[in-house]
Amino acid sequence: MLQAASRMTLVLGGARSGKSAYAEALIEAHPAPWLYLATAQAWDDEMRERIALHRARRSGGWITRDVPMDLPAAVAEANGPVLVDCLTLWLTNLILAEADVAAAGAALLAACAAAPGPVVLVGNEVGLGIVPDNALARRFRDEAGRLHQRLAAEADRVVFMVAGLPMTVKPC
Amino acid sequence: MLQAASRMTLVLGGARSGKSAYAEALIEAHPAPWLYLATAQAWDDEMRERIALHRARRSGGWITRDVPMDLPAAVAEANGPVLVDCLTLWLTNLILAEADVAAAGAALLAACAAAPGPVVLVGNEVGLGIVPDNALARRFRDEAGRLHQRLAAEADRVVFMVAGLPMTVKPC
Amino acid sequence: MLQAASRMTLVLGGARSGKSAYAEALIEAHPAPWLYLATAQAWDDEMRERIALHRARRSGGWITRDVPMDLPAAVAEANGPVLVDCLTLWLTNLILAEADVAAAGAALLAACAAAPGPVVLVGNEVGLGIVPDNALARRFRDEAGRLHQRLAAEADRVVFMVAGLPMTVKPC
Repeated sequence: MLQAASRMTLVLGGARSGKSAYAEALIEAHPAPWLYLATAQAWDDEMRERIALHRARRSGGWITRDVPMDLPAAVAEANGPVLVDCLTLWLTNLILAEADVAAAGAALLAACAAAPGPVVLVGNEVGLGIVPDNALARRFRDEAGRLHQRLAAEADRVVFMVAGLPMTVKPC
Repeated sequence: MLQAASRMTLVLGGARSGKSAYAEALIEAHPAPWLYLATAQAWDDEMRERIALHRARRSGGWITRDVPMDLPAAVAEANGPVLVDCLTLWLTNLILAEADVAAAGAALLAACAAAPGPVVLVGNEVGLGIVPDNALARRFRDEAGRLHQRLAAEADRVVFMVAGLPMTVKPC
Repeated sequence: MLQAASRMTLVLGGARSGKSAYAEALIEAHPAPWLYLATAQAWDDEMRERIALHRARRSGGWITRDVPMDLPAAVAEANGPVLVDCLTLWLTNLILAEADVAAAGAALLAACAAAPGPVVLVGNEVGLGIVPDNALARRFRDEAGRLHQRLAAEADRVVFMVAGLPMTVKPC
């Protein structure tokens, strides 16, 4: 089931579908050190606890860098295997900062294409429930869907995680 | 990845998963003219904008017809390739009008079966989030699930879109 | 499309995706009698109606037992094919009773592993929508995701239902 990461892999799935663990294992199939680009910001205790759990799981070969906003530059500077965890929180940060989301997506894509080593990107699928009541949530899921489509079109491999297991979306 | 539409194809997926673009490409693999049956009603500016974006993307070979309610009759009158976009808004219109949803579903299925050319139907998967608080949303996702099951049982091909890419559900 | 149940099969999917009907058919491919372990509790009329619909669909070979809480013991006592419908309501019952969810999951897994006949477990995927507003819903979808991952890791077969059709998640 586990393969070494292609040059660019997109790992999509719902909450608690095992995306991060799977993505980490893809990167760990390459020689260390591994760069972990963390986009989470610890707004509250719940988030702090999630971040701590994720960190505790990662072994010593990982170098963690917090990049809530300037993800494209951080990917561009990587010179080995890099994991982006996750696109969803990055997008949230961009939208809250009223940044240009389309331009940021294009910059990220360009950085991934130019990266010398494998890049694995993790994103949450959020568009499979009832249409949300509030406009911000609707905008968020639109932007997330657009970003995922854009990255998936260029990715060498796309998987959709279900219960910790990867379903192959691409190659299709 | 792209194949010409089978006689009856069901394209399912979440919000912004690339359903419409994929469905249009399936139809455009056949000779024009192509009939686009649009079920959206422009209730507000957000919806008006979405409709305009979809229209702008479609090339000259398309003939668009607005059918918020009587979709079965419109499919029955088609004499070439036809795209239904989308089942979800049609179902919303039926429920708001207190129409007989089961009868409408049966009529649609009969019209698809009798159509002389390929029919591609687009529907939103809305049942993969937390159970909605309000009863109308629960009823809606029940009806949507039933309609999709019914159409999928008869369809020649069913795909589940993830990030713009089709996963094959049927043939399974 | 239909195969006899492996020793342990996990059937996941959204609301009205045909999980129960598919799971019942898997079990009915074995000789009767079949044990149906029902975790639903009839809190209100809507739930009572759903339970009645499910019961009415099942043929004479089924023995139904209500096990809102002690599912591991009931699975352990089974001496033939057994269907658990569903994990989602069981988890809801456990959380509302402030039971030890992790211990209960481990006990269920042990009971499935020790069962003499095939076991089919049905669960709702609830993690593919926008992050829920309320903390209880977030906790619920976290626990559901963890339970599904744990069972999927040990299951012989995992399917993800879309519009009444099974997509194979495992073997992957």
